[in-house]
Amino acid sequence: MSDVLRLGIAGLGTVGVGVIRIIQNQAERLEMRTGKKIVVTAVSARSKAKDRGVDLSSYAWEDDPVELAKRDDVDLFVELMGGSEGAAKEAIEAAIATGKDVVTANKALLAIHGQAIAEAAEDAGICVRYEAAVAGGIPVIKSLLEGLAGNAISRVMGVMNGTCNYILTRMESAGLPYDVVFEEANQLGYLEADPNLDVGGIDAGHKLAILAAIAFGTQVDFDNVELEGIGSITIDDIHQAADMGYKIKLLGVAQMTGRGLEQRMSPCLVPDTSPLGQLQGGTNMVVLEGDSVGQIVLRGAGAGEGPTASAVMGDVCDLARGVRIATFGQPARTLRKAASARAAVSAPYYLRLQLQDKPGALAKVARALGDNGVSIDRMRQYGQQDLTALVLIVTHKTTQTALDQALEACMETGVVSGTPLALRIESV
Amino acid sequence: MSDVLRLGIAGLGTVGVGVIRIIQNQAERLEMRTGKKIVVTAVSARSKAKDRGVDLSSYAWEDDPVELAKRDDVDLFVELMGGSEGAAKEAIEAAIATGKDVVTANKALLAIHGQAIAEAAEDAGICVRYEAAVAGGIPVIKSLLEGLAGNAISRVMGVMNGTCNYILTRMESAGLPYDVVFEEANQLGYLEADPNLDVGGIDAGHKLAILAAIAFGTQVDFDNVELEGIGSITIDDIHQAADMGYKIKLLGVAQMTGRGLEQRMSPCLVPDTSPLGQLQGGTNMVVLEGDSVGQIVLRGAGAGEGPTASAVMGDVCDLARGVRIATFGQPARTLRKAASARAAVSAPYYLRLQLQDKPGALAKVARALGDNGVSIDRMRQYGQQDLTALVLIVTHKTTQTALDQALEACMETGVVSGTPLALRIESV
Repeated sequence: MSDVLRLGIAGLGTVGVGVIRIIQNQAERLEMRTGKKIVVTAVSARSKAKDRGVDLSSYAWEDDPVELAKRDDVDLFVELMGGSEGAAKEAIEAAIATGKDVVTANKALLAIHGQAIAEAAEDAGICVRYEAAVAGGIPVIKSLLEGLAGNAISRVMGVMNGTCNYILTRMESAGLPYDVVFEEANQLGYLEADPNLDVGGIDAGHKLAILAAIAFGTQVDFDNVELEGIGSITIDDIHQAADMGYKIKLLGVAQMTGRGLEQRMSPCLVPDTSPLGQLQGGTNMVVLEGDSVGQIVLRGAGAGEGPTASAVMGDVCDLARGVRIATFGQPARTLRKAASARAAVSAPYYLRLQLQDKPGALAKVARALGDNGVSIDRMRQYGQQDLTALVLIVTHKTTQTALDQALEACMETGVVSGTPLALRIESV
Repeated sequence: MSDVLRLGIAGLGTVGVGVIRIIQNQAERLEMRTGKKIVVTAVSARSKAKDRGVDLSSYAWEDDPVELAKRDDVDLFVELMGGSEGAAKEAIEAAIATGKDVVTANKALLAIHGQAIAEAAEDAGICVRYEAAVAGGIPVIKSLLEGLAGNAISRVMGVMNGTCNYILTRMESAGLPYDVVFEEANQLGYLEADPNLDVGGIDAGHKLAILAAIAFGTQVDFDNVELEGIGSITIDDIHQAADMGYKIKLLGVAQMTGRGLEQRMSPCLVPDTSPLGQLQGGTNMVVLEGDSVGQIVLRGAGAGEGPTASAVMGDVCDLARGVRIATFGQPARTLRKAASARAAVSAPYYLRLQLQDKPGALAKVARALGDNGVSIDRMRQYGQQDLTALVLIVTHKTTQTALDQALEACMETGVVSGTPLALRIESV
C-alpha cells in the first residue's frame, strides 16, 4: 500500500472548493489521523478559467470528468457534480471500471441508480461512500451503517431539506404567507434551480430512500417514496398546529411494516416539545430508532461548503484508513426488493376544509367522516369568509385509505369548497 | 481470515447480558452485515450460578477474566466489568499480550490508563474500541474519531451523566430540593454504589477526558479535568436560572485554548432554548464543534442494557468488518501531552450570595466585585430569611481567576454568610 492517497475531484462548486480547502489547510492533521498523505492530483469542472478562491495550479485539469476518473494517477474519485444522469453517472462508472474507490455527495444518483452502482462496485471490489449525500455534515450514514449495525432498525425519520424548514419556521416566526417566504428564500439563494426539488420534497425524498436502504437491507427505491411538498401549507395551518401544540415539518419517515416498506416525505405535524418540533431554520435533524439503541437524534447543518466538505472528508479519511464496507452495509446482491406499503401505519390526521354556507354543512361532513370510520378528536369552525367557513379537524388514529375514502365522501356532500388538506400527525 | 469471529465476554451484568442477547437474536443480520459469523465462545463473571435470563450453556466458563482473555478460542475480548484497576485492566493487558482485539465499555480505565493501553495495543497491532464508554448508545466516539476526521475540533461539550440530568430536571419540574430528589434517584437505582461518581461529576469527567483526547490529539488527561458536582445546586438557583432564560446542567466542556487544554465538568447555565437546555431526564447529549462541520448535536440514551449493548456491538461489527483505527484516532505515540489551562476562556457567571443584615452590605459586595474587574450585568436581592438576604448576580464576561479574587474580596467584607456559589454561563 502506498503512503499517498491521490484524489481526483470532479466538480468545483461550493463543496468541491470546500474539500480542496480542507486538504490544503489540514494536510498535517489528515496525515496524522489516517497514516496517508492525502493529495489532489487532478480536478475537473465546467470552467477552467473561473477564479474559485483556491489554488488549483498544482493539479492536472481535465475537461471531461470521465477522463479524470480513468487517470492512472488517481486512486480515489470524488464526484461532486450532482445529477442523477449524464456526466456524474458516467464518471463514477468509469472510476469503478478502472478500479478506483468513489466518494460522492450525489443523492439523486444514489437514490435512482444506487443498486446498480453498488453491484458494479462490489463486483469490482470498489468502495462507494456517500456521507455527504444525506444531511450535510451530520454523520448519519456512518451512524446508521456502522454505529447501529447491531440493531434491527424500526424507523428512520428526518427533516432533511433545510430550505423547507427555513420556509416553514420563517412563516411562523414572521407570520408571512408561503408565497412571500418562498420568494424570500429564492432571493437569498436557498432554492435549487428547480425549486420543486426543495419544496416538492424530491431532494429530501432522495435522502430518505438512501437511508431506508441501509436501515432495512432493501434495494434503494425512490420510486416508492410518497412525495408531498409544502406548497399547500398556509399560515393558518401553522398557527392552528401551534395552538394544538404542534409544528409542521417536511418530515421523511421510513419504516418496515407487516405489509412492506413505507417511505413518506410529506408535511407532518410533530409535537412542538420534541427535538424535531424544536428544529428552527435551515438545520437538519435525523432520528434513528433501533430495537436496542432506542432513539438517537442527530442534528447539524444540512448544507453549505464546510459541513458538506466535512462529510466528504470523513469518507476520504475512512478510505485512507482502509475502512472498506459494502455500499449499503451488506452485499448489494443480498439487498431485498421490499414490497411497498403506502401508509400502512395508522395515525391521527389534521384536516383543513372550506365549507360552503349551506344549512347542515358541518353535520354532513362529520357524518361523511364517521361513515368511513374516521372519528373526530377535535374540531374548530371559524367565521365565514367569501361565503365559506374554515373548518379544522383533528381525527383519531386512522389509515390513509380510510381517510382518502372519507375525504372523497366529504367532497360528494357538495358542501366542501376547494381541496381539503390532510396532514399526518406523526408520533415522534 | 476466518469467517467466524469468536468473542470472549468478561462481565455479565446488564450490558454483558444485552450483548449476548443481540448476538443470539440478531445472528443472521450480524452475519449479513459483517460477512462474519459472530459467536461467543467463552464468558466470565463473578457468579456462575446466577440466572441472568440468557442461555449461557454453550459457552465455556472462566472464573478468571485474565484466563478468558488468554484463551486460544477467543479472537476478540469484550471487557464489560468496569473499574479502572484490577481485573479489568489485567484482562485487557492479557488480551493485548496474546494478540486479541479489545472492545470495552470501561470509561474509568480509559480515562486513567488510556495512553498506556493505546501504546501497548498499537505496539502489538491490536485495536481497542470503546464506543460504549461514552454516552451509551450515541455513536459519539465514531462520529468524532471517524466522521469528523477532516475537522480541526474546536470544542466538545456534553451532558453525559443521565442521573445528574434526571436530578436537575426533576428538581425543576417537581419543585423539590436536591436532597429529596437525590434520595428518589437512589430509590430508583439510578445512582452508582458510590454516588459521588455520578453527582460529583467523576463518571462524566472520565467521558469528557476520553473525548478530549480524540478531539485534540492529546494524551487522555483525567487528572486535569476540573470537577464540580451538582450537590450545591438549590431549587432557588434552578428557578432563578429559569427566570433569566437558562437551565442548569452538569455540563462537560473541553476546548483547546491559546494557553492549553481546558477540561471542565461542572454545573453550568445554558440557554433554555438550546438543545442542551431542552434536554430532559436521563437522556445524554454531546455537542461537537469543528472548523468545517460547525456544530453537530447527538442525543440518545446514555445508559441501559439496550443502548450500551448497541454501542458494544457497533464496535464488534466494525472489527468483524476489518475496520482498524488507532485507539484515539492517531498513533498513540504521536498524541501530545497538552498543557492544562484551567478556566482560560472568560465567560459570564451566575453568583449566589447570602448577605448579612448590615447597613451597606450590598454596596460592599458590589464594590469588591468591581474592584477586581468583575462587572455586574444583573442583580436581584430577595427579602430576608434568618437575618440574611439572598442576592443573585449575573456578571459580564470575566475570567475564573478574576472571579475567584473577587469572591475572596467579597468574603473579606465580612457581610457574606456561608460560601458563595458561582456557576459559569456557557455559550452553546
